[in-house]
Amino acid sequence: MIIDQSHAINLHQLNLPPRLLLGPGPSNPHPRVLQALSYPTLGHLDPKFVELMSEVQELLRYAWQTSNQYTLPISATGSGGMESALANSIEPGDVILVGVNGYFGERICEIASRFGGEVCRLEVPWGDVFELDTLKNAIEKYNPSVLALVHAETSTGACQPFNGIADLCHSHGCLLLTDTVTSLGGVPLFIDSWGIDISYSGTQKCLGCPPGLAPITFNALAMEKINSRKKKVKSWYFDMTLISKYWGSERTYHHTAPINMAYALREALRMVVEEGLETRWDRHYQNAKLLWDGLQEIGISCHVSLPNRLPSLTTALIPEEVDGKAVIRYLMDHYNIEISGGIGQLAGKVWRIGLMGNNSKAENVLLLVNAILDAMNHCKK
Amino acid sequence: MIIDQSHAINLHQLNLPPRLLLGPGPSNPHPRVLQALSYPTLGHLDPKFVELMSEVQELLRYAWQTSNQYTLPISATGSGGMESALANSIEPGDVILVGVNGYFGERICEIASRFGGEVCRLEVPWGDVFELDTLKNAIEKYNPSVLALVHAETSTGACQPFNGIADLCHSHGCLLLTDTVTSLGGVPLFIDSWGIDISYSGTQKCLGCPPGLAPITFNALAMEKINSRKKKVKSWYFDMTLISKYWGSERTYHHTAPINMAYALREALRMVVEEGLETRWDRHYQNAKLLWDGLQEIGISCHVSLPNRLPSLTTALIPEEVDGKAVIRYLMDHYNIEISGGIGQLAGKVWRIGLMGNNSKAENVLLLVNAILDAMNHCKK
Repeated sequence: MIIDQSHAINLHQLNLPPRLLLGPGPSNPHPRVLQALSYPTLGHLDPKFVELMSEVQELLRYAWQTSNQYTLPISATGSGGMESALANSIEPGDVILVGVNGYFGERICEIASRFGGEVCRLEVPWGDVFELDTLKNAIEKYNPSVLALVHAETSTGACQPFNGIADLCHSHGCLLLTDTVTSLGGVPLFIDSWGIDISYSGTQKCLGCPPGLAPITFNALAMEKINSRKKKVKSWYFDMTLISKYWGSERTYHHTAPINMAYALREALRMVVEEGLETRWDRHYQNAKLLWDGLQEIGISCHVSLPNRLPSLTTALIPEEVDGKAVIRYLMDHYNIEISGGIGQLAGKVWRIGLMGNNSKAENVLLLVNAILDAMNHCKK
Repeated sequence: MIIDQSHAINLHQLNLPPRLLLGPGPSNPHPRVLQALSYPTLGHLDPKFVELMSEVQELLRYAWQTSNQYTLPISATGSGGMESALANSIEPGDVILVGVNGYFGERICEIASRFGGEVCRLEVPWGDVFELDTLKNAIEKYNPSVLALVHAETSTGACQPFNGIADLCHSHGCLLLTDTVTSLGGVPLFIDSWGIDISYSGTQKCLGCPPGLAPITFNALAMEKINSRKKKVKSWYFDMTLISKYWGSERTYHHTAPINMAYALREALRMVVEEGLETRWDRHYQNAKLLWDGLQEIGISCHVSLPNRLPSLTTALIPEEVDGKAVIRYLMDHYNIEISGGIGQLAGKVWRIGLMGNNSKAENVLLLVNAILDAMNHCKK
């Protein structure tokens, strides 16, 4: 048979622009993390890789402040973590109460309903968070088996407080499931002390690792629900009853893990331990404050009220006289800086600015604020 | 709140053994591929990354010998490709006929049934392939809407021929779905000329890229079935109607792609083009033949008959007097070589030896055959 050459394009070696990623993620991984990524590939059942798996699990436990046995990276990106959390915890007919205050709450509703969940939406405007009383009333009304909340809404920059929520859930026989994609490694987060039962995240935000893995954690209560399901998890790829045997002491083959991504995640987490969570969280907060002050000085306000404002992701209100999209293009064309626009309810209204992981540093804030000032002067409506 | 230090383990920098991966995959990526992996991360909507996405798609079309518009890498490993192919093409109640002649045929049955498929199994012993007549009878009996066959069974080393199968399927209104995880880039494969409607693969075998992405391709007929589904795809993460909008001209955000893995895949595919498919397939065949001859010389036969034998993965029968597991350990401990044992029907009976991608070369064969000879002398029962 003759080989068709029509798609055999001749490409040059990759030559990528050195972007500074100050949008909603990914953030720039530290050079140490990129170096680890390129170490020689091992087999997925190699004793040395199996050892590394345990190390990654233990480091994730530290980052998440949990002792959950079932803490591991799913072989997919953050949204795969969301799908995995829901695929396992929701059985057809289960009532799931979802706090919708942004794009990712919406996504939870969509995924949960595909897995047969009866989705009850609890809505507040994008940028707000949920009060304990509101949650209490909704739980009493809907009697859900799962309450899903987004800790750090990447679409709005709001940070959901968790005081009292787990107690409320557990006293009503309800599991607490949280999206911590944009908080893990950058924002105070205590899975065990806060009583969170299920959480998932991504590697490419505050952990400062490239995208490609989705850390996930289930506590004993959550695993009990999963192990007593009447029907198998619809998704074989994300089925924790199988995945946990590969990541557990059995090491039973399930699928080939993204080996090199695991190296990178180990290195990124090793840097979290070296820095220490308290210092790291404080660094994220101090640099975010520097950004908020800097923005204010050039006449830009933040969309989220100070007490609920996320340090890792800021939604900055676009001044009326400025062409927001033009500013985004200008920053990329003139300074190789990526920031992003708003989506959903905030489309056209805000810029989304991320200071995550390795990128949360004073020099980036100083550069960005001055670059935005320059861009605004060139991008009037 | 006080930070719990109990999981804050202090780890040394990674120091991995230089394994030669001659098992069922992953194979060792070429240094150029590992270098590409470590290039600075871009945003997933960056114009430069969007350009790279199109390049990867075009290169995949060449490797697969297809002009299918919907050809792209899924953000998961090979098994995620399998799940994606089935999640999209199977609706609850659809009859799917599955050729089961190894472990991955079994897995197709498992995943298809979770998505509500009525699975009809067609079985032959592990190591055999399916005759056209057998398939014809089964298609007439079960009237399936999808026939699933594994082109290259990684668990057995058998290579399924495709002469006449697509015509048979299409004349019965049935789609042809194939697993090409261990053939893409190493074994002759013509998606369009053979009339295959859906196929998925992995990056870590004959393409010589680390694991972490699952190339997939759907032709117009397959997309027609998917777009006219009565119900949404259960899996949001693998839903082609959404993913195709991110990889299509719209570039609508769906999830964050594993950016750095895409760099590596581009480089691996660029090397496929540089070498040329014909040369590459021939190289895989010549080195496999060298292996088969070498094994024969030291008294080892192959499990699969010559006409159906896969060049990329050889199942070598373990001589009766030899402790197969001990040989595997010996090769790793003494030579840093990974080969693997058999699974399922072939557990304890064979070694699985892969010569895939960059690893398919004469020096590896010479080393391996002599290392096995040495190991056998040390590992008598």
